Amino acid sequence: MTTTDTTDLAGFSINQRTVKQLALPELVEGLTAHGVPGVGLWREPVQEYGVAAAARLVRDAGLAVTTLCRGGFLTAVDPAARAAALDDNRAAVDEAAALGTDTLVLVSGGLPDGDKDLAGARERIADALAELAPYAGERGVRLAIEPLHPMFASDRCVVSTLAQALDLAERFPAEQVGIVVDTYHLWWDDTVGAGIRRAGEGGRIHIFQLADWITPLPEGVLNGRGQIGDGSVDMRWFRDEVAKAGYTGPVEVEIFNEDLWARDGREVIAETAARYRAHVL
Amino acid sequence: MTTTDTTDLAGFSINQRTVKQLALPELVEGLTAHGVPGVGLWREPVQEYGVAAAARLVRDAGLAVTTLCRGGFLTAVDPAARAAALDDNRAAVDEAAALGTDTLVLVSGGLPDGDKDLAGARERIADALAELAPYAGERGVRLAIEPLHPMFASDRCVVSTLAQALDLAERFPAEQVGIVVDTYHLWWDDTVGAGIRRAGEGGRIHIFQLADWITPLPEGVLNGRGQIGDGSVDMRWFRDEVAKAGYTGPVEVEIFNEDLWARDGREVIAETAARYRAHVL
Repeated sequence: MTTTDTTDLAGFSINQRTVKQLALPELVEGLTAHGVPGVGLWREPVQEYGVAAAARLVRDAGLAVTTLCRGGFLTAVDPAARAAALDDNRAAVDEAAALGTDTLVLVSGGLPDGDKDLAGARERIADALAELAPYAGERGVRLAIEPLHPMFASDRCVVSTLAQALDLAERFPAEQVGIVVDTYHLWWDDTVGAGIRRAGEGGRIHIFQLADWITPLPEGVLNGRGQIGDGSVDMRWFRDEVAKAGYTGPVEVEIFNEDLWARDGREVIAETAARYRAHVL
Repeated sequence: MTTTDTTDLAGFSINQRTVKQLALPELVEGLTAHGVPGVGLWREPVQEYGVAAAARLVRDAGLAVTTLCRGGFLTAVDPAARAAALDDNRAAVDEAAALGTDTLVLVSGGLPDGDKDLAGARERIADALAELAPYAGERGVRLAIEPLHPMFASDRCVVSTLAQALDLAERFPAEQVGIVVDTYHLWWDDTVGAGIRRAGEGGRIHIFQLADWITPLPEGVLNGRGQIGDGSVDMRWFRDEVAKAGYTGPVEVEIFNEDLWARDGREVIAETAARYRAHVL
């Protein structure tokens, strides 16, 4: 046998978006070739490929689907827009169930145009969750509220801290609504350790995602996340905190970065696994 | 008399950096022409003009110097760099005293290269404040710790929330160390109201600064602040919160924005005063 021993990658996962240059079959092949046992899937490319066909592809390869990204965008005031968002989220729940993952990541949504009421937007998210949570629970899918970095508060996600995400999630049963711990969004916050403990006590850490914080941020700031080890985040501190909080689930690397996307996708998979070994394990 | 009534601008101030295209005499002339009674000064252009000459210019024009920006950058580990930073901050205190302002704004500094220890960096700030605070107090100058938006945590300021700034400030007497409430940096935080009350109770709101939050953020994110009224910040909510917390000091507009800098500076002063009337008063 010349195969590399990859038992240390148990529980490791790479989100599809990290290597979005790869078509789904190439992604599956690249992950299995490098011994990566899990994948986080992204709705749009999965829909393009076909949900049933994608489910078959990853199942046949023996990959665990650690998340489906993403539902959410639940802050609309307009009734028609709100109804459309709820429909879309029910479809996302169905897709998650079909793909065999128990975790649908939610990016909550920003402020409507001209609106300055963050608290009101957060209440509309709670109202939407009240409709979606039972629907998800009946299908074995958990809604995972992802706090996004405060720099996204106006245009993408009014939920900026783990505490805010938990304030929303705790209104619902833990098997229906929990949270995402993503190092990129939370690393700066000195209350994140307390938030992780609170989330762990409630069984609400549904997924642990990794990306590093690097600067300068690019225009629009969305695609400036760093490869693991390139930035300011103490990955082992996060790993230890979620472990101490009782989390035993997958560790999923999700990076949006133009430089990574410009490279050979299989090389990026290999590098990401190597960085995981060097900076997380 | 055809002079516009500007009594409603009592307590209003514009930071020099908002109209950095104006030389100091033009700035002073523009502010007085529009009835703006206060100015926040910036160290580098003041040093270029000469501190004593600048002090004379603003005093003769009857302008109140609401702040000097900025000291800080106190997170160095290297002893020589740390000593240089302390020297520079003592010089900034002296300049503030010479200019007749009681408030020196501190931007605390980011992580040293390759460092991931935010808590350690914050402790080094506390150590530096222990040396600087008495020096400032003896000269009638208060050090005002400015929490910067979390997107600056790695490269500019490891103090990201009002709570963190107060945790540092409260180790020292309020007449030596307080905080800055800047809408741009704090607007997203649902605990900021509690922080403002805590700061007010301790007499530690040293200055109230305004800028609006707009997107998309430009590359590097530093110079993407919005003119008052152009963005997501509820300015009147902030005004009311600092007032309820007992703050009766100046309201200083400080905007870094390439578009504003490209325009006629006097026009920007007029617009800023108009926006203040429309969105803050």
